[in-house]
Amino acid sequence: MKNYRKELWFNTPNRMDFINITHLIRECLKDSGIKEGLILVNAMHITASVFINDDESGLHHDYKKWLEANIPHEPLEHYRHNDTGEDNADAHIKRQFMGREVVIAVTAGKLDFGPWEQIFYGEFDGKRRKRVLVKVLGE
Amino acid sequence: MKNYRKELWFNTPNRMDFINITHLIRECLKDSGIKEGLILVNAMHITASVFINDDESGLHHDYKKWLEANIPHEPLEHYRHNDTGEDNADAHIKRQFMGREVVIAVTAGKLDFGPWEQIFYGEFDGKRRKRVLVKVLGE
Amino acid sequence: MKNYRKELWFNTPNRMDFINITHLIRECLKDSGIKEGLILVNAMHITASVFINDDESGLHHDYKKWLEANIPHEPLEHYRHNDTGEDNADAHIKRQFMGREVVIAVTAGKLDFGPWEQIFYGEFDGKRRKRVLVKVLGE
Repeated sequence: MKNYRKELWFNTPNRMDFINITHLIRECLKDSGIKEGLILVNAMHITASVFINDDESGLHHDYKKWLEANIPHEPLEHYRHNDTGEDNADAHIKRQFMGREVVIAVTAGKLDFGPWEQIFYGEFDGKRRKRVLVKVLGE
Repeated sequence: MKNYRKELWFNTPNRMDFINITHLIRECLKDSGIKEGLILVNAMHITASVFINDDESGLHHDYKKWLEANIPHEPLEHYRHNDTGEDNADAHIKRQFMGREVVIAVTAGKLDFGPWEQIFYGEFDGKRRKRVLVKVLGE
Repeated sequence: MKNYRKELWFNTPNRMDFINITHLIRECLKDSGIKEGLILVNAMHITASVFINDDESGLHHDYKKWLEANIPHEPLEHYRHNDTGEDNADAHIKRQFMGREVVIAVTAGKLDFGPWEQIFYGEFDGKRRKRVLVKVLGE
């Protein structure tokens, strides 16, 4: 059994941002030399997500609009978490909607994906350096 | 270490539908010959889900009602993604709520489940052939 | 390849409650003797969650407030599932928002976590004994 681990760092220009990281995960998988197994990709921070969906800017706009309408950033005093001096309570809730992690099958050395699947880093409290963990298990 | 892979195809009669696929996943597990490990079951399409919950028609009605009330299909022009000619922006958002995948423990050759756990394919943009991936890793 | 399995039991005093189970999962991992691999932690019941977020009481209040505002317990007759004699339809929906399971990387015998990651049992229909499953795969 082989295993592989890598951290990827991101720093988004906006509070809420989605970054396509599929090519970086493919590089990790290639580096791992693993041909059959599972790959876990997770946000290491609790106001960020890793999720799989479409790389279409209109859809990303729709996600942001839905999240902001249903889990608004303001008013800050709406959230008790913000009484601690933070302003990111909404980001913790948004991340639960979009998910912490994805687990992807590795088959014949490739991400075993449907035609439109792309991996995104989802940031809900950005403008600072945060990490994603990649772990591959297999042979 | 052993691994196993299979694709399952579905074509639902309605735009939004839930199909109990537990028996199909049990067949995959039996075919795999794997006794201890993990099984990943994921939608290969980005407007569909795989999730675990109860096989009760009233509950499925409640899920659909909640999803449609909170992430409505119409008006189509409410979503920028639909400017691309698609009409399924809501389906991409609904799938994030219900989840892309489940990871299930395999113990003594069986799905290691609580008393009510059942696996569902969740379709949010149906009436066409779409796939679920099953990958088992273990020994 | 090694594997390890354990069930953890919980009985929360309130209908909706979050319990930090990180130290219990660390004990399981130590017992397993596994140094490199993946650990799956999932609710075995379909009205409960396992999720990773912050151990901050204000945030937990915010989660409960958001969930109750958006997926209310009452009126019971709002949900068709409750026609079966249950009163927990909302709990099934809340659990989908918070998620069934987490998959965590195991590196050098430890949970491979970012600085604030903590594992919680999330209960949405409590006041009775329910289980969490821990499965570790690796070597």
